[in-house]
Amino acid sequence: MSNFLTLDDMTLSTGKRARLYRLLYGHGPGNGTALFLPIDQGLEHGPVDFFPNPPSKDPAFQCELALRGGYTGLVFQIGLAEKYMHAYAGRVPLVLKLNGKTTIPSDDEAFSPQCATVEDAVRLGADAVGYTLYVGSPAQAEDFQQFADLRAEAEALGMPVIVWAYPRGSAIEEKGGRDSIYAVDYAARTACELGADVVKINLPKLDNLAALPKPYNALADDEAAAVRRVVESAGRTLVLFSGGSKLGDDDLMAKAHLCMGAGATGLIFGRNMWQRPMDEALAITARIKTEVMSQYPRELRG
Amino acid sequence: MSNFLTLDDMTLSTGKRARLYRLLYGHGPGNGTALFLPIDQGLEHGPVDFFPNPPSKDPAFQCELALRGGYTGLVFQIGLAEKYMHAYAGRVPLVLKLNGKTTIPSDDEAFSPQCATVEDAVRLGADAVGYTLYVGSPAQAEDFQQFADLRAEAEALGMPVIVWAYPRGSAIEEKGGRDSIYAVDYAARTACELGADVVKINLPKLDNLAALPKPYNALADDEAAAVRRVVESAGRTLVLFSGGSKLGDDDLMAKAHLCMGAGATGLIFGRNMWQRPMDEALAITARIKTEVMSQYPRELRG
Amino acid sequence: MSNFLTLDDMTLSTGKRARLYRLLYGHGPGNGTALFLPIDQGLEHGPVDFFPNPPSKDPAFQCELALRGGYTGLVFQIGLAEKYMHAYAGRVPLVLKLNGKTTIPSDDEAFSPQCATVEDAVRLGADAVGYTLYVGSPAQAEDFQQFADLRAEAEALGMPVIVWAYPRGSAIEEKGGRDSIYAVDYAARTACELGADVVKINLPKLDNLAALPKPYNALADDEAAAVRRVVESAGRTLVLFSGGSKLGDDDLMAKAHLCMGAGATGLIFGRNMWQRPMDEALAITARIKTEVMSQYPRELRG
Amino acid sequence: MSNFLTLDDMTLSTGKRARLYRLLYGHGPGNGTALFLPIDQGLEHGPVDFFPNPPSKDPAFQCELALRGGYTGLVFQIGLAEKYMHAYAGRVPLVLKLNGKTTIPSDDEAFSPQCATVEDAVRLGADAVGYTLYVGSPAQAEDFQQFADLRAEAEALGMPVIVWAYPRGSAIEEKGGRDSIYAVDYAARTACELGADVVKINLPKLDNLAALPKPYNALADDEAAAVRRVVESAGRTLVLFSGGSKLGDDDLMAKAHLCMGAGATGLIFGRNMWQRPMDEALAITARIKTEVMSQYPRELRG
Amino acid sequence: MSNFLTLDDMTLSTGKRARLYRLLYGHGPGNGTALFLPIDQGLEHGPVDFFPNPPSKDPAFQCELALRGGYTGLVFQIGLAEKYMHAYAGRVPLVLKLNGKTTIPSDDEAFSPQCATVEDAVRLGADAVGYTLYVGSPAQAEDFQQFADLRAEAEALGMPVIVWAYPRGSAIEEKGGRDSIYAVDYAARTACELGADVVKINLPKLDNLAALPKPYNALADDEAAAVRRVVESAGRTLVLFSGGSKLGDDDLMAKAHLCMGAGATGLIFGRNMWQRPMDEALAITARIKTEVMSQYPRELRG
Repeated sequence: MSNFLTLDDMTLSTGKRARLYRLLYGHGPGNGTALFLPIDQGLEHGPVDFFPNPPSKDPAFQCELALRGGYTGLVFQIGLAEKYMHAYAGRVPLVLKLNGKTTIPSDDEAFSPQCATVEDAVRLGADAVGYTLYVGSPAQAEDFQQFADLRAEAEALGMPVIVWAYPRGSAIEEKGGRDSIYAVDYAARTACELGADVVKINLPKLDNLAALPKPYNALADDEAAAVRRVVESAGRTLVLFSGGSKLGDDDLMAKAHLCMGAGATGLIFGRNMWQRPMDEALAITARIKTEVMSQYPRELRG
Repeated sequence: MSNFLTLDDMTLSTGKRARLYRLLYGHGPGNGTALFLPIDQGLEHGPVDFFPNPPSKDPAFQCELALRGGYTGLVFQIGLAEKYMHAYAGRVPLVLKLNGKTTIPSDDEAFSPQCATVEDAVRLGADAVGYTLYVGSPAQAEDFQQFADLRAEAEALGMPVIVWAYPRGSAIEEKGGRDSIYAVDYAARTACELGADVVKINLPKLDNLAALPKPYNALADDEAAAVRRVVESAGRTLVLFSGGSKLGDDDLMAKAHLCMGAGATGLIFGRNMWQRPMDEALAITARIKTEVMSQYPRELRG
Repeated sequence: MSNFLTLDDMTLSTGKRARLYRLLYGHGPGNGTALFLPIDQGLEHGPVDFFPNPPSKDPAFQCELALRGGYTGLVFQIGLAEKYMHAYAGRVPLVLKLNGKTTIPSDDEAFSPQCATVEDAVRLGADAVGYTLYVGSPAQAEDFQQFADLRAEAEALGMPVIVWAYPRGSAIEEKGGRDSIYAVDYAARTACELGADVVKINLPKLDNLAALPKPYNALADDEAAAVRRVVESAGRTLVLFSGGSKLGDDDLMAKAHLCMGAGATGLIFGRNMWQRPMDEALAITARIKTEVMSQYPRELRG
Repeated sequence: MSNFLTLDDMTLSTGKRARLYRLLYGHGPGNGTALFLPIDQGLEHGPVDFFPNPPSKDPAFQCELALRGGYTGLVFQIGLAEKYMHAYAGRVPLVLKLNGKTTIPSDDEAFSPQCATVEDAVRLGADAVGYTLYVGSPAQAEDFQQFADLRAEAEALGMPVIVWAYPRGSAIEEKGGRDSIYAVDYAARTACELGADVVKINLPKLDNLAALPKPYNALADDEAAAVRRVVESAGRTLVLFSGGSKLGDDDLMAKAHLCMGAGATGLIFGRNMWQRPMDEALAITARIKTEVMSQYPRELRG
Repeated sequence: MSNFLTLDDMTLSTGKRARLYRLLYGHGPGNGTALFLPIDQGLEHGPVDFFPNPPSKDPAFQCELALRGGYTGLVFQIGLAEKYMHAYAGRVPLVLKLNGKTTIPSDDEAFSPQCATVEDAVRLGADAVGYTLYVGSPAQAEDFQQFADLRAEAEALGMPVIVWAYPRGSAIEEKGGRDSIYAVDYAARTACELGADVVKINLPKLDNLAALPKPYNALADDEAAAVRRVVESAGRTLVLFSGGSKLGDDDLMAKAHLCMGAGATGLIFGRNMWQRPMDEALAITARIKTEVMSQYPRELRG
């Protein structure tokens, strides 16, 4: 798949293009690909995620990793952005996550309420906003409406929107689960239809196909084909794959290759990075940039 | 039935008339009838609908089909409109669908939340907006309220409103099902009463009449009479019939004749068109326009 | 000058592109050029302009001329649009003029107040709005501010803005007059800088150069070069030339050739058209389209 | 002139049509013509106008006259409407005058500020609003802007707008004066262009033609032709002629015939009515209705 | 003066710091100094400024110069930004000029009305906004008020404000003229007091000191001391010096050294750059960056 999606294909306003250009060409790998460092797990999962690498509990750790590792951007909730970004302002791009929740209540009617606004993101000099959409949740209607308002405000202010498209709810569990190719494929398309500029999804799993709705239950995709499939379902939406829980170096490198080779624009690796000590995190970051991202440049026409 | 409803009969504001005239006389068959190409199934049904014709997964396929086939308009959600319409702006009319949902959660309390606004439609140069109203759903009250706001905004901006009037919910299932003549007839009237300019409905089915409320359970309508009945229930609301899942050529042509002969203003055929390869889709499109739509012209007085 | 400005060069939003495409390719000459019929003289000059051709006093005359002659669009103030466009809605595009004044008070501090809004234009299904900007008037500051608000609203609603860029005021009279190449050149650039999508200007005059500021006082332009100069000063703004008071057929055809040959996108001829009886007006319209506009097509890439 | 303008020709919204129908067919002469009783002179001229008939100082006098004489409607400023209409509500239609001024300051920069809103008119159950527009005044820009806002609000609420179109200012005095055919003709057209539904003008005078701008200075109109001319300039705007200062019976009857015969929709006679004792006022009112208005019925198609 | 003002000294919000960091360290010289390319002269002076180098009439010339020369940012009015920045979005920072005027009307009551908003700047992805403040003009009160609103909006959105602080008006002429040390010193302080983040001033002139108010009339400053003086008056406001009309190479280099050596943060050279052919413009740009700007780095603590 040499025909990668670029900013030229996306009908972007001048402001969205300026900000996405800064992310994709002015920071990170710098060749049109993206490597984001998310640090919203303290809210989403609680401090449990910091136990493997205690210094990571201090957001300054991730700021420093993002700066020294040359990441495309940091992903913060409003509180962390207000408290930790000042010294890094302009040096590390900010993606302000606009909604969030804890993992404490049941996920049965998953819904992530808005905690900050697009105007907050502008005020803080962010280059994109993030939003978690729980595709298929019983609370989907409320979620779509909340997202619609945010999307419109982002459009008016030229702010790119990254959608964390996460299948959720009992209906999705009954149809093969949140990471099935059926679920991920549908989530990618949903983000495209609702107006995401960038969508973050998980790698689709190909086990247990029999449980999926037709015709997914008869799919002959291998892993690479499945990734290509969901990238295609995202259409003119840039795709990021998340890293999920921590993997060994070889598995992580293989995952990066798999995603980028199948047409993803980038990766958003959190625990896999900052659950390692700084030196190891910087080393694996450098490997991903050198060995993977450099292989998938996107050239613009302009 | 030679006494077709025309724009002259509808007490339209200048703006609504301008936009409906463009759809009905400036594009598509061009004689006052309509042939729309909807492409919101990626959200409503998921990518499953694209499996029969994989190129259809890329919305550029439908844009090209609409342009080359000379459709009355394309129906897109906001995300697809933002990303795919620029090159077709002014060449193919846009109907912006303002609400939508996935098929993942249960349909028991069907409600389709708003994903975009009438102002978005204006901003994108659309000639109409679309809204799915789940007539009879337990969530009907919320639906009516959401629709009322949208209708008022559309009125103020001269934007025609097309209502997808879909009977839903356990109550409707207990009374004969969503496609019964009782359900469709009620839905058509509901759209007219609430202020739709155009209503999209499914063909009413005449099997299992005994299950319907009186006096529908004793109806002697044949198929054509049933279609006339629902068209009449829509009153001064233009009626579009949907194609539903894919039919063979002869069945599709027969369906088109049945609807148009009974007074429909037009057809809105999605999967029946873009689940075919481009050449076949263009061929059947041409047949419908030549053999069917040309038979039912509406002349204006002006 | 074969390198004509097209919609592809203008960084247009989808809505502005849709509406400009309709004007330039869906109506009028249909090849990317424009021939507008303005009928705002009843307000700007008073009924005096209708004396040469009394039927022209009834705006229905101009509506009929625009329809039968196949014009790109009619230019109306809000009152005429409300009262006369309904029967022509969708058949003849509308440009709603948003400000205006009478010729009665002194022109010393020329300022044209807003009489309608961009939202009125949307409501009436217009494809563009018009605004008269008195460049150089002592009231210029108020004018710029009024225009800025209108431009922002038009941008938000995807509505193209046509600026009537008219030099006015004692300062401009002291520097060579309102139709001098200095004045027209400055007006064209001003419209571009302030955000017009289309600018309407008068043909620059080359007599009395000595009165102009340097270096215009030493200009060696012939007529064609002068027109090219002002078209270039408008940059990525489409240029329309006005016809002014009524000319004979040969002079009018020569003027049309001069403007279009020098890179104008179109002509906006009012009195020169509707001060003739209908048959003559239709005849000269046809000649301009056949002999002139057809020679200057603009092809789009898309 | 048998081709009278009717409500059918005016592209009226349902609300404006309902209110104008009530005025023109439900009250007054009842045949599509209008006879209004204005009582805003207490503000515009001061109590001086009440000296000839002291009971007229009490607005109850005019209320009673309007009711017993069967007028089309009363014209009041907000204070009189609040205080005197309650007992007549529904029995005599109300036209709420929305702007006004005293005659005390100089008329050089005539401008009539808004004293009430369209919403006040709705709240009081009025069937139309009135607005005085000083065409040609140096304050014309402010006037046009104030009117534009009011017109938009009236449009949104379905409230008919009657414009008192009065030429004013030194420029108009230099060009032949406020009642010249030039001035009145321009004023009529201005009201039409800016969106009046009804325009109230004074009878044009034909003396001193030489002082008028070309080609008015060479006009060969007799009185009837002059009135027809201004009625035609108003286009699809209903025309009312004012009575001005008090005339004798024969002159008043002649004036009424002149206006109605030339195409006016109605008359708005104040001082000529309420400066007479009640019995005389009722008598002349009856004569106008019987001998004049009955001669000029307008039939609707519907 | 080794104690240069840096972003660390300015109590900047995170957003303002992010944007200023991008300008000062992410683009241009990249060491904390600034070299801006303004192109608002087409509006402020008219097309006359383009005569010395005709290709400069096309704003694409300046875009290309800014990109290839590695400027800190381009300064555009809204119209040019909308039409010319898309291809350069993110590659060349944008400073959106928010007010402007033509040079046509008298400068006696100089006032530059707002032509765009801070929100426009955000929407277009600008990194700063520009505002011309006419210090001392009779219209100063209106100017201060307009600026106050804009400053507050910029503060809320984290957008840096660059003030073009220009002394103007007869009072300033009577006190030694707009470029006197008195006038420039006062202007610099005014910008600081009213809330500019950056101030653009002209080099103060030291001739004709006797005409200045005490104690400026007895000043013993040499040129460098005078520049230091105004830089100090700007306090914690970054100072840019303008180039003014075109100079020879040696004079330009000397001016650059003078300003930077005296503590300026940067230069904003327009005509001196784009009135040269591209190659010459790039060559002198490179010399200024290499020979001057590199000598005055500002290091941040963070």
